[in-house]
Amino acid sequence: MAASFQPTLPAEELRRRVLALAEPADQALQDSLHSHVPYIEQVSAYIIFSGGKRLRPVLYLLAAAAAGGQGEPRQAAIFEYLHAATLLHDDVVDEAGLRRGRPAARTRYGNDAVILVGDFLFSKSYSLAAEVADHRFINALTDCTTLMAEGQVLELLFTGDYELAETDYRRVIQAKTAVLLAAACQMGAIFAGAGDTVIQALYTYGMELGMAFQMVDDALDYVGTEHEFGKPVGHDLAEGKITLPFIFARETCGPALRGRLVELATAAPTDPEAQAEAKELVRRAGGVDHTMSQARGHAMAAQKALADLVPDQGPGDPLETLLALAPYVVDRRS
Amino acid sequence: MAASFQPTLPAEELRRRVLALAEPADQALQDSLHSHVPYIEQVSAYIIFSGGKRLRPVLYLLAAAAAGGQGEPRQAAIFEYLHAATLLHDDVVDEAGLRRGRPAARTRYGNDAVILVGDFLFSKSYSLAAEVADHRFINALTDCTTLMAEGQVLELLFTGDYELAETDYRRVIQAKTAVLLAAACQMGAIFAGAGDTVIQALYTYGMELGMAFQMVDDALDYVGTEHEFGKPVGHDLAEGKITLPFIFARETCGPALRGRLVELATAAPTDPEAQAEAKELVRRAGGVDHTMSQARGHAMAAQKALADLVPDQGPGDPLETLLALAPYVVDRRS
Repeated sequence: MAASFQPTLPAEELRRRVLALAEPADQALQDSLHSHVPYIEQVSAYIIFSGGKRLRPVLYLLAAAAAGGQGEPRQAAIFEYLHAATLLHDDVVDEAGLRRGRPAARTRYGNDAVILVGDFLFSKSYSLAAEVADHRFINALTDCTTLMAEGQVLELLFTGDYELAETDYRRVIQAKTAVLLAAACQMGAIFAGAGDTVIQALYTYGMELGMAFQMVDDALDYVGTEHEFGKPVGHDLAEGKITLPFIFARETCGPALRGRLVELATAAPTDPEAQAEAKELVRRAGGVDHTMSQARGHAMAAQKALADLVPDQGPGDPLETLLALAPYVVDRRS
Repeated sequence: MAASFQPTLPAEELRRRVLALAEPADQALQDSLHSHVPYIEQVSAYIIFSGGKRLRPVLYLLAAAAAGGQGEPRQAAIFEYLHAATLLHDDVVDEAGLRRGRPAARTRYGNDAVILVGDFLFSKSYSLAAEVADHRFINALTDCTTLMAEGQVLELLFTGDYELAETDYRRVIQAKTAVLLAAACQMGAIFAGAGDTVIQALYTYGMELGMAFQMVDDALDYVGTEHEFGKPVGHDLAEGKITLPFIFARETCGPALRGRLVELATAAPTDPEAQAEAKELVRRAGGVDHTMSQARGHAMAAQKALADLVPDQGPGDPLETLLALAPYVVDRRS
C-alpha cells in the first residue's frame, strides 16, 4: 500500500523545510512565554522546551502558506501552548512518570502546580488567538478545545474497558489528537484568508494526518523500545488503555485466544509478565500490522484531501511539504 | 464606617432584584450545558447546580443594564462556567472534601474526571464569549483567565509562608477572586456597547467588590461555623493559607505573641488545638475586625467607582442594585 503515496520529498529536504518553520515557531514561544509569576515561566519552559518537534505550529504555518497566505509564528505558538497544557493535565491523570525521555513535569513540580500552569497555558493560547480579527479563528479554537476535553474524558471513561469497540477508540483518538492537528491546519487557512473549500480541505488533511499520527503512536507502543520512544513502552496496556492493535487482535484471533487476551490485559496493569504476553499475542495476531496499515490509509486520505489545492511551484512549495509529511508520519520510528 | 455607605435598598427588594436576574442566568446554564459526553454533563451539573448564588452572572447582567444596554443570559453563563472550572481545579489542589455543604465533586467523581471536566468548562466559557462580535469581549476574558491562573499559582507558592506580606496577600485575592467579578462587570459594559469610561468604572466596581467579597470570606473563615458556611471553617490555617486576619494580627500583636502565633500556625495543618488557639489569638488581636473594616473600605470604593454613572430612575434601576450589592457583600454571613 505504501506505493500509493504520492511522490514525496527526500527525507533530508523535508527535515530542512520543517526545521525552517519550527525555528521561528520556537522563537515565538520564547518571546511570548512570559508571566507575572516567574515560577509559571519555569514550569512552562520545562514542558515546552523539552524537545518537542513543533509539529502543530509547523502545520499551522504550512497550511497558511499552502492556502496562499502567510502565517505568523506568534499564532503558531497557540498550538504548542495548547498541546503543552493538555500534556500537563494528561500526565496528572495518567500518573505519568516520564515524558519525552525525562521526568514528567508533575514529578518535578507537583500535580498542583502542573494543573494550574496547564490552565495558564490554555489562557495563553486563547489570548494569542483573540488577537486575530477574523472571528472564525477563535471559534475554531473553542470548537477544538471543547472536543479535546471531551476526548480526554472519554478516554478516562473507557480506561479498563477491554471490550472497547473500534468506533469508540476512533472517537477518542480523533478528539484527543486529530482535532488539534486539524484545527492548526484550519486556522492557518483562516488566517491566510482562504475560502471555505480550502479551509475545509486543510481541516480534513489535519484530521486524517492526526488519525494516522495517533495510530502509529498506538502501534509503536506495542513494538518500540523505551529508548526510541522517550517514554516507557507497553504503557497503554499498563494503564488499561485499549487501542487499535489490541482491538484488532481481540476481534480476529478466535474465541479461545480472545478470552486469554482479555484475561492478560486485565492483569497487565499490575503484572508485567501478563503485559508482555498480551503484547506478544497482539503482535502475532497482526494487531500492529493492521494498525500501521490503517494509519497508512489515513495518511493517504490526508494527501487526497489536498488534491484540489494549487501548488505554488516555487522552491519549498508548502503543498509539497504537507504532502510529504503524510508518509513521514507513518514511517517515523518515534 | 458603615454609615458612609450610600443609601441602600431594603434587603428583601435587593434579594428580589438579584433573583430576577439569577433565574434567567440559571436557565441559560441549563440550556447551554450540553456535551457529546453525558458524563461531562453529569459532573458539570453536580458543581454548577449546587446552590451557587449566581453572583457573577448577575453582576454581568446588572453591569450591562447600568451601562445602558441589555446583557444576554447566554453570555452571563460564561462567568459561572469559569467559576465552576476554577472551583473544580481548586478542589483538587486543596484536596477539599466539602464544597457548598456537600461532598466536593472530586470526592465523588475522582480528581481525574474533575480536572478534565474543568478543562471542558473553560472551553465552554470561551465558546460563549467567542459568539460576541466585539473583539474587546473575548480579550477581556483572556486577560481575566490569565490573571486568575497566575493568582492560583501564587496562592499555591505562598502556601505555608507564615511571613506572607499584605501586598502579596492582596495580589493573590485580586487575581484569584476580584478579577473575575471585574471581568463580569467589564464585559457586561462592553456587551452593552458602552464607552471606555463607563467600562472602566464598572471594571473598577467589580474589582473593589471582589476584594471586599474575598476579605469577608477570609474573615468569616476565622469566625463562622461550618453550618453557616457550607465548608469547614478554619480551613485556611489548616491548609497553610495565610490571609489578612492573620497578617494583621501578626503585624500588630507585639514580638512575643508574634512568635507564638507563627508557631501555632505552623502546627495548625496537623494540630487542631494549635489551629483553634491561633484563631483565638487572631480574633483577640483584632484581625477579623480589621479585615472586615478593610472589606468595607473596598465596598465603599466599589460604590464610589460608579459615581459618574447615570441612574435610569426607573423601577429596579440597575445602578441602584449595584450600589446596594456593596454593603450586602460585606454584611452577609456566609
